[in-house]
Amino acid sequence: MNSAILLISCPDKKGITAQVSTFIYNHNGNIEHADQHIDSQTNTFFMRIEWALKNFTIKRENIAKEFSQLAEKFNMKYSLNFSADVPRVAIFASRSLHCLHDLLLRYKEGQLCCEIPLIISNHSDAGKIAKGFGIKFFEFPVTKQNKLKAEAKTAELLIKEKIGLIVLARYGQILTRKFLDKFPSRIINIHHSFLPAFVGEDPYGQAYRRGVKIIGATSHYVTEELDAGPIIEQDTVRINHRDTISDLKIKGQDLEKIVLSRAVRWHLEKKILVYNNKTVVFD
Amino acid sequence: MNSAILLISCPDKKGITAQVSTFIYNHNGNIEHADQHIDSQTNTFFMRIEWALKNFTIKRENIAKEFSQLAEKFNMKYSLNFSADVPRVAIFASRSLHCLHDLLLRYKEGQLCCEIPLIISNHSDAGKIAKGFGIKFFEFPVTKQNKLKAEAKTAELLIKEKIGLIVLARYGQILTRKFLDKFPSRIINIHHSFLPAFVGEDPYGQAYRRGVKIIGATSHYVTEELDAGPIIEQDTVRINHRDTISDLKIKGQDLEKIVLSRAVRWHLEKKILVYNNKTVVFD
Amino acid sequence: MNSAILLISCPDKKGITAQVSTFIYNHNGNIEHADQHIDSQTNTFFMRIEWALKNFTIKRENIAKEFSQLAEKFNMKYSLNFSADVPRVAIFASRSLHCLHDLLLRYKEGQLCCEIPLIISNHSDAGKIAKGFGIKFFEFPVTKQNKLKAEAKTAELLIKEKIGLIVLARYGQILTRKFLDKFPSRIINIHHSFLPAFVGEDPYGQAYRRGVKIIGATSHYVTEELDAGPIIEQDTVRINHRDTISDLKIKGQDLEKIVLSRAVRWHLEKKILVYNNKTVVFD
Amino acid sequence: MNSAILLISCPDKKGITAQVSTFIYNHNGNIEHADQHIDSQTNTFFMRIEWALKNFTIKRENIAKEFSQLAEKFNMKYSLNFSADVPRVAIFASRSLHCLHDLLLRYKEGQLCCEIPLIISNHSDAGKIAKGFGIKFFEFPVTKQNKLKAEAKTAELLIKEKIGLIVLARYGQILTRKFLDKFPSRIINIHHSFLPAFVGEDPYGQAYRRGVKIIGATSHYVTEELDAGPIIEQDTVRINHRDTISDLKIKGQDLEKIVLSRAVRWHLEKKILVYNNKTVVFD
Repeated sequence: MNSAILLISCPDKKGITAQVSTFIYNHNGNIEHADQHIDSQTNTFFMRIEWALKNFTIKRENIAKEFSQLAEKFNMKYSLNFSADVPRVAIFASRSLHCLHDLLLRYKEGQLCCEIPLIISNHSDAGKIAKGFGIKFFEFPVTKQNKLKAEAKTAELLIKEKIGLIVLARYGQILTRKFLDKFPSRIINIHHSFLPAFVGEDPYGQAYRRGVKIIGATSHYVTEELDAGPIIEQDTVRINHRDTISDLKIKGQDLEKIVLSRAVRWHLEKKILVYNNKTVVFD
Repeated sequence: MNSAILLISCPDKKGITAQVSTFIYNHNGNIEHADQHIDSQTNTFFMRIEWALKNFTIKRENIAKEFSQLAEKFNMKYSLNFSADVPRVAIFASRSLHCLHDLLLRYKEGQLCCEIPLIISNHSDAGKIAKGFGIKFFEFPVTKQNKLKAEAKTAELLIKEKIGLIVLARYGQILTRKFLDKFPSRIINIHHSFLPAFVGEDPYGQAYRRGVKIIGATSHYVTEELDAGPIIEQDTVRINHRDTISDLKIKGQDLEKIVLSRAVRWHLEKKILVYNNKTVVFD
Repeated sequence: MNSAILLISCPDKKGITAQVSTFIYNHNGNIEHADQHIDSQTNTFFMRIEWALKNFTIKRENIAKEFSQLAEKFNMKYSLNFSADVPRVAIFASRSLHCLHDLLLRYKEGQLCCEIPLIISNHSDAGKIAKGFGIKFFEFPVTKQNKLKAEAKTAELLIKEKIGLIVLARYGQILTRKFLDKFPSRIINIHHSFLPAFVGEDPYGQAYRRGVKIIGATSHYVTEELDAGPIIEQDTVRINHRDTISDLKIKGQDLEKIVLSRAVRWHLEKKILVYNNKTVVFD
Repeated sequence: MNSAILLISCPDKKGITAQVSTFIYNHNGNIEHADQHIDSQTNTFFMRIEWALKNFTIKRENIAKEFSQLAEKFNMKYSLNFSADVPRVAIFASRSLHCLHDLLLRYKEGQLCCEIPLIISNHSDAGKIAKGFGIKFFEFPVTKQNKLKAEAKTAELLIKEKIGLIVLARYGQILTRKFLDKFPSRIINIHHSFLPAFVGEDPYGQAYRRGVKIIGATSHYVTEELDAGPIIEQDTVRINHRDTISDLKIKGQDLEKIVLSRAVRWHLEKKILVYNNKTVVFD
C-alpha cells in the first residue's frame, strides 16, 4: 500500500469532482477510494479521495504544489496525506487502564496503522503495561500548582517525539487551552457517556441516578469546552434496573474500548473531516 | 386469563417472599409470574407477583383487605390489580400522528390490553384517524389564555370516562402541575431524544447541530419538570453525516413508535414500579 | 429535484471516475452525490453518481446515447434513472397485514418516492385497507392447480399497469421462476428471520425452538432459490427465555416493517447495485 | 458475600415458590435474589433463588439433605451452589488469542469470579501470554492419529486440577463425544457467527460470500453436534459492502470477546439453567 489521500472541504461548485479526479488521472494515478458529501444547509463540499502512487507521474514532494492551483481555484481547505507516513501516537492514561490495554493489543495485532512510541500518565499505574509492551513511559504528576508546568514539559516531549496524535485513554486531567492549541484536531478523548448527556465527572453515577435504560460512550476531538468537541463515534448498550453502578462500569468499559478504537483507527486512516464542531466520517 | 397482580415495594426484610407466596398458596392460588428486585443502595424490596384467580379461596373484592395485614407488617406500598379490569386509555395527539396511528394499529391487532374510548387533541388533524378507528374525538384548542380552562374541561371528561392511563403521543402542549396532580404516574409521554440529552423543543434539530452519531427516543411518566420524569424505556439508532434533519425525523419516528408502544404495554400489564424518579420494569 | 442517476459497474481501471465526472461537468451538470466502491477481490468498480439536470446541456432522452461511448470504453453495465420518473409499485400481501399497512402509511407521509396504484393478494383480507387508502385491490386466489394461470394473469396486470417494483409484504406464496424472470431484481421480499438462518416456513417457531437470543428480519431481492436472493437489509432485536412464539412475532413485526421499508426506499432512490448475488447499498 | 444459590427445574405445581421461600425463611435465611420462569408450553417451572448464609440455621454441608424432602415432593432437578466455592476454570486456545487475552484481563480486573489455574492449547502461541499472567500452560498438539490419546491426557489433567468449567476461547479442535461426556454443560464455546447461520469453518468467509448486512457471535455449551448446543448469548454488529473479510474479523473479534465473557460470567454466577437444548439465563 503506497497511496496518497486528499481530504477536501470547500464551497460547493460545479466541476470539483471532475477536476480533482482528472488531476489524478492525468498524472496516471489509480483512484482506490473516493467519497464525497455535500452539506446542503451550508452548501459545503467534502471529499476524501485516495489513489495509488505507483506510476503516479508527480513526485510525492511536489504533489501539494501541483495541486495548489486547483485548491485555490475552488477555495479549498485540504490536507494531503500519504499512507507511507505512519503517524506517531502518544497515549495518555491515568488509573483506569482498560482503554490503554485495549489500544495496545490492537496495535500489536496490526489493527492500528501507527507507531506508539510513548505512554504518558499522571500516575505510575500504567508503567507496568507500558513496559510489557516495550513502550517508553513518562509519569508527569499533575497538581493545581504545577499543571501549566507539567503540560509544558509534556508538550515539549511530544514535539520532540514528533507525535501526530494524542489519545486520551481515560486520562483524568483536563487540559488547558494553551496545551490544546498546540494540537488542534489531534487529541482524541473517550468520554464514558452518551454525550451530550452526562458531561463531566462520574457519568456512570449520573446515569444510574437519572435511571436511564441505555448507557453510551463517545469519542471526540478535544476542544476547550469540556466534553463539547466534535463527536467522532458513539455507541450504546442496554441496561436495566438490576444493574448497579459497578455493573454500568463493566458494561460501559466494553463500549469505551470499541468506540475509542474506532475513532483512533478512522483518524489514522484519514477518514475524518472536522467542520462546524462536527465530523464527516468517510467510513 | 383471570389473574391478580400485586406490585409491592417496602424496606427489605427477611421473610417477605416467603410470606407473600405463602399467603397466595394458602388460599389456593397458582403463581404464574414472580419477580423481585432489591435495591441494595436504599435497601428497598420490590416485587411483582401474579397468580391465577381460578379456585382462589378469597373473593376478588376481599383480597385487598385480607392482604392488608401482611402489607402493614412489612410497611408495604402496594397496588393490587386484576387482569380482568381492562384499563381505559385516552390518547392525546397534536399534528405528528405516527405514534397515534401506531398505537391504534397495535390496539386493533390485540397487542394492547386496554380500551381506547377517546382521542383528544389541540388540533383537528387527528379527527379523521379517530373516525376511521371508530373512536370518539375531542378537539380542545389550547392558547396561553385558555390553558387552565381547557385542561379543566379535559380532566372532567377523562374522569367522566374513567380513564386510567393518558398517553401523550407527540402531544405538543405542556401540561400544568394542576392537571398532572390528578393523574400521578398515569401519564406516559414520548420524547424524541435520548434523554437527558436534548430536553425541550426540536430535539432532532438539537441532535443535528450537536453532530451526534446516534439518536434516540425516550418514554417516561410525566412530572412537573419538563422531560425529567421516571424513564420507562429508551432505544437508539445510528445516524451519519449524510442524514439531514428530515432524515433524523424519519429514522426517529420508527424509534418513537416502538419505544412508546413498549412503555404503554408494560404499564397496561402492570409491569412498572416507580420509585425515586426511576422505574423498575419487570419485563 | 430534477436529477439523473447513474449506477455503474465494470472492471476497475484508471480514469473511470475522472471521465464519468468530466462527462457530467462538460455538459454543465452539477454533481449532487457521488459514491464509489471497488471490490478488490473481483477487481470490480461500482459507482452511483447523481447530478442536477437543470442547465444540463444534453436532453434527457439523449443522455444514454451520449454516455454509451464511455460505457463501451470501460465495458460498463449501467442503468440511467431520472428522479422525475416516479416508479409504480405493486404490493403483494396475504393475511399478515402489518407490513402492507406500514408501507402505505409511509407512502402517505411522503417517505416513499413512488406511486402505489395496486395491491394484490391471494386472500380478501387486505381489501379493506386498500379501500381505505384509495388503492385498487385485486384478489387472485392461488392453489396448486391454478398457480401458473394466476401468475400469468397477475403478470399481465402488472405489465399493463407499468409496475416497476413488486414488494412482497409478507406475501404467502412462492413465485415460480417463470414469473420471476419477468421482473429481475425488481421483486423485494421481507423474510422474518436473520437469513441465512431459518429459511422457509415459520421462522419464529424455528427461532423459538433453537433457543436463539436474538431474532432478525431480512429484506432481499427474490430469486428462484427460496430466501437465497441478494440481501438488501437486515436488522435484529434481542429476545429472552420469557418470550413466547407470540412475543417473537410482535417483536419481529417491528423489525419487518423497518427493514422492508428501508429496502424499498433504497430501491426507489436507486441506491442499490446487485452483483454476485450480493448488494452494494450506496446509503 | 457468602450465599447459597439454588437452581431448580420441575413440573409446575401450586406452592413451589411458597415452600421453597418458606424453607429458607424458616431457617433464618435472607433472600437476596429470586427469579422464576414458567415455560407454559412444557409446563415446566424454573427458579433461581439466592440467600445469605449469615445466621442461616442449617450448616452448609447439611442444606442439600434438608432440602431433599422438598425436592422429592416436587420432583425437582436442582443444583445447590455456594458463592464461597470459587470455580476453577481452564481456558483452551489455539492461534487466535484475542478471546484468551480478553478473559485474562477481565479475570485480573476482578470481573470473573473464578480461579484460572491453567491454559491448554494445541499450539505453542499462547504460552507467552500464559506466562505473562503467571498461569500454567500445557501444549497438547492434536493430530488425527493422537486425538483420543491427547484428549485422555487433557481430561486427566483437568480432573486432577479440579476444573469445573472449560472455556473454548477460539479453540480450533473439535472435541469427541467421549471427552464431552466427562464435562456435561461445563464446556462453553464461542462461535464467530450468529448461529444457526454459518456453522462450522470460516464463518466470516461464509458471511462475506452470502452478503449479509450484519454479523454475529454466539456462545453456547458444547454438545456432540457441531455448533448446535444450547445457546447462552449472542450479539450482532452491522457491516456493509465496504467491509472485506479481514474487516469482518476485526469487527467480529469485539463481539466474540464480549459475548464469550458474558456467557462465562453468567455461568460462574450460576445464572444459567439448561433444558431442551436451550438456556434460561436469570440475568
